[in-house]
Parts: sequence; structure tokens; C-alpha cells
Amino acid sequence: MIQPRYLIGVDLGGTNIVVGAMSADGTAMHAVRSEPTRAQDGADAVTARIARLIEDTIAGTIAETGAQRSDFVGVGVGAPGPLDRATGVVLITPNLGWKDFPLRDRISAAVGLPTALDNDANCATLGEWWIGAAKGARHAIGITIGTGIGGGIILDGALYHGASGIAGEIGHTSIETNGRRCNCGNYGCLEAYASGTAIATRAREALAAGESSQLSTLVDGALDRITAQKVYEAAELGDAVALHVVRETARFLGTGIANLLNIFNPDVVVVAGGVTQAGEALFEPLRAEVRRRAFKPAVDVCRIVPGVLPGTAGVAGAVAAFLQQHP
Amino acid sequence: MIQPRYLIGVDLGGTNIVVGAMSADGTAMHAVRSEPTRAQDGADAVTARIARLIEDTIAGTIAETGAQRSDFVGVGVGAPGPLDRATGVVLITPNLGWKDFPLRDRISAAVGLPTALDNDANCATLGEWWIGAAKGARHAIGITIGTGIGGGIILDGALYHGASGIAGEIGHTSIETNGRRCNCGNYGCLEAYASGTAIATRAREALAAGESSQLSTLVDGALDRITAQKVYEAAELGDAVALHVVRETARFLGTGIANLLNIFNPDVVVVAGGVTQAGEALFEPLRAEVRRRAFKPAVDVCRIVPGVLPGTAGVAGAVAAFLQQHP
Repeated sequence: MIQPRYLIGVDLGGTNIVVGAMSADGTAMHAVRSEPTRAQDGADAVTARIARLIEDTIAGTIAETGAQRSDFVGVGVGAPGPLDRATGVVLITPNLGWKDFPLRDRISAAVGLPTALDNDANCATLGEWWIGAAKGARHAIGITIGTGIGGGIILDGALYHGASGIAGEIGHTSIETNGRRCNCGNYGCLEAYASGTAIATRAREALAAGESSQLSTLVDGALDRITAQKVYEAAELGDAVALHVVRETARFLGTGIANLLNIFNPDVVVVAGGVTQAGEALFEPLRAEVRRRAFKPAVDVCRIVPGVLPGTAGVAGAVAAFLQQHP
Repeated sequence: MIQPRYLIGVDLGGTNIVVGAMSADGTAMHAVRSEPTRAQDGADAVTARIARLIEDTIAGTIAETGAQRSDFVGVGVGAPGPLDRATGVVLITPNLGWKDFPLRDRISAAVGLPTALDNDANCATLGEWWIGAAKGARHAIGITIGTGIGGGIILDGALYHGASGIAGEIGHTSIETNGRRCNCGNYGCLEAYASGTAIATRAREALAAGESSQLSTLVDGALDRITAQKVYEAAELGDAVALHVVRETARFLGTGIANLLNIFNPDVVVVAGGVTQAGEALFEPLRAEVRRRAFKPAVDVCRIVPGVLPGTAGVAGAVAAFLQQHP
């Protein structure tokens, strides 16, 4: 039997680093490792941490599969943007505090493997397209809802990057011309209404306005401890305020996704991230809102589905990004 | 000298049909003919009218250039959508009253030339990309503002059509979740705020609310005779109400175009149609609004410019659509 080639995927986030190995055909993921990023230690320390995790993953994969060191052919890295794919430089990362850091070449030098860099949200979408919820789709849009809202665009089976590499900022499209101020400076961004942060804010506002909710109990009365996670938990308990917040979120996302259907007419939209924990309480009204708004020929051909690779879409996508950059 | 090949472009609108011939290299347009569509005569009569205009254009081009009938190699047709490019069938056209009409093959049979069909808004964008304001751009977005708002998307130098051919409906993206009802059924569509129709409506609303304006004089006090055209005329005269309407239009368009910059990160956005008559009174605040909203790396690489082919972008684009379908 010929030993398959293996690739390493790195998902570098503001909170955690996740690393895993995959066979080049995407059928298996091995030796997934995770550690806190601890960005405050600085870029050199984080790079060393990533390199050590990669070596751990390689050793673990060799132990699991009988592969050899020479079977590992490349590393894909998904990092917070904006970044320059051509030079492999992370330009600015508010979450990490880096500026113009040559992450790709530093990792490549540390582990002695060719390395590719792409945006984390692009990688998450590419992972779902390669082996997850959007597998086999020609045109796929990915929306990852966490602290913020990231997006990725796959057209004709390849990531679309735009003229200067920042395409896909779906979270920063305005659905309210004069709406809530967004961290990016724009007004009424989807992110300002439907991110995890915004979901928590809207729940907090409802409680601060005097609505009674089991959410208060869940956080022992401390409103500042309300998170999106707590809202989903309360919604699952049938709490009216939490259910209303989830339903509103579905409507905001429905507006944004209907816009994407009328613009891209995609085969699939994958919604990933913590928000998918709300399950059908979110997806049912979300799909209804999209049907109410978008053109029927676009609605008829498009699946709107939750991501199926929580925690590992970014790793798989980083591997796929390496493969797309080294065809 | 070798005689160049010629192609015919047909721009079929609800009001007028425009036909012209172009050399295959796009350097010259010949024998442009135009006639009212008179859709009420029915699909057969309109098809016959188009065929006659094509023959007129061929005869005129032969007279102008010394070409022969055999130098004409194809016909491109831009028609109101939705339509099926693969079968050449116009599915539904509210403006023309047609349903499932095999326009492509009917024209092809009538003039004896291979024929290609695409959406009129796509053709208008493709024309500006081929020989107009977006010439040479890798990624270009076109917005045509008339009665409604049409859109076209060119990525990597080719029209993007999406999964079922209806991509690019930029006019039907919501910039106000709970905004004005649009003809398409959605709420807050860009078209409901910034189309020619919406511009006239907003001016009428301002006057009906008692604001005094030279617009009243321009239409002899008959508010129902206010058109977008009259608003641009009044703005040019320095009328405060008209200038405010144009400025508001710029802000609405700025919101929609900033969204497109964050999504597509294009090289150029071409804004075409009657609205460009407002000139810098529109484009200056529009560009400012986009700068205020979109990501800087997207703003820095993107030109936002008026179309330069009023009246003929659709003809040129129909020819280019033929060439893209018959490479």
C-alpha cells in the first residue's frame, strides 16, 4: 500500500490555536491539538507555540498511521486578517496585536515545510466546502458567527479573494443604513446585529428595560455576564426573551442572507459558529425570512445549512487552502 | 487587408430596441438603429421588428465598411430577465408580458446567424467592461439605474451568473431591514430608494409635504409629472429640494456600494443610467459615503465611476456576451 501524503492545518484564533493533520484526499483528520493562543506573549512566542503544536501533531499522526516524517508535505495556516497571501504577511490583527508579521515564512522555517496563509473566515468556509456541509457545491457562501461575523466566498470551487484580498467581509454589509454603529466604523452592519456579541447585547438591553427572563437566573442577576451561549441555553429552556432574541437574530441574518442569494445565487449558504447551537429555533425562521425576501429562482436552488465541522472547519480549510495555493 | 469579423448586438428594453454592429475586436460600432419596442404587439411582432433592425444594421454596416454578409458571424441579445441562457428562453418579462418565449432561437432562425442571449443588466455591465469605463478591470461591478436598478458582476474577466443564472440582482439587496416595500416583495431594497422611480417618489413626497421647490415650476404644479430627469434638472439649477434628493440618493447608493466593496473587493464599480446626469452632485457625496463605510483596503483599490456608453453599453455588452458564450 502506498502511504498517502499528509498536510497540517493550523487555525490561529485570538483565543485558541488548533492544529491537525489530514490526508491529502480529505478523508481523515489525525492528532488534533489545541492550546490557548496567549497573544500577549508576543508574535515570536506564538509562532514557537504553533511550531511545537505542528511537531506534536506530526508525531501523533506518525504514531496513529505509521506515516513517516517525509509523508508530510505542507502546512496551511488560517489567521485573522487582513493579510497578504502573496507574501504570507499578517498585516494587522487587532485580536493578536501584530502588525506586518511574516507568519507564513516564520512557520515554514520553524518546521521545514512549505506553508500557505489565508484568512481564518475563508478557511472555515473552505473546510465546510471541502469535507463538510457545502461539499460538492459549485458556489458556496460561508458565514461564521462568533465574537464577530466572518465570511467566505467560494465560486466555481475556488476561494474568491477580490482585488486586494479582503473580499468576503459579509459581516460588514449594512442592513440598516442608519443603524447601530459597528466596530469597523460602518453603520448597521450585520455583525452589529447578529454576532455573538450583538446577541448578548440585545438580550442585555431587553433585561435592562425590565423584561423578566430566566436569563437573569442563569447569570445570577449579573447582566454583564450574559453571553450568546447563555441566550441559547435560555432559549432551549423556552424562555420568551431569549426566544425573541434568537428569532430577531434569524430575521437579521435572513435579511443579510437574502441579499447574498440575490447577489450570488449560490448553491449553499453554510452558517457556522456558536449560533448554530440554537438549532431549528434559529434556522426555521431564518429560512422563512430568506424565502420572504429573496428571488424565488435563487431560493429554490439554495440550501441554508449549519456547519458540520465545529472546531475543525478552520483546520480542514487551512489544509484545503494550501492545496488550492499549491495545485 | 483582411476584412474583420462583425457581430450584431441587440439591446431589447421595455421601451426601445437598440441594435448595432461591432467589429469583433470591439474597436468600432456601426449602423446603430433604434425603434420603440411596442411590446403590446406581441412576441412575434417584436421578434420580427428585431430581425428587421438587424438586417438594417447589417446593410448599413456593409455600406459603411465594405464588409460582406458573410463577415457577420453572430448576434448577441440582451433581454429583460429572468431567462435561461442555456436554452435561450426568456422565462418571464413583466415589462414585455412574455412567458417562456424562445427568443434566441427565433432571432437566430429569422436572420440565419448563431445567437446568444443574456440578461440586459449583465450586458450593460459587460459592455462597460469590454470597451467602456471598466475596461481592463479584473473584477468589475455594474449598477444600471433606470426605472429599476439592474446589476452585473464580472469576476476574473467573465460574467458571473450563479447557480440558476439570476446572480447580480444588486438592486434587490436590502439596505433597510424594515424599509420601503419593493416591487419584488422584499423590504428596503436599494431599488426602492435609489432607482429613477424612487428618486421621483422621494421628490414628490418632499413637495407634497409642503417644501417649496423649482420642481413645481418645472412640472407646472403637477406633482405626478415629476420624474428623476426633472429632479436632475432642478438640481442643476441649484434647487435645494432637488439637491437634497440627489444627496440622499448618493447616501443610499453609497450604502449599497460600500456593501459591494466589502463583499467583492472589486477594481471598479460602474454606475450607469439616467442618474449619472446628476454628475459630481451625485458622485462626490457617493464616493464620500463609500469611504465612510467600506474597508480601507477595498476603498483604496476601487474606482467608482459613471458609465461612458450611455445608450450603447447594452449593444456592446450583448456582442461581448456572444463572444464569451462562443469563445
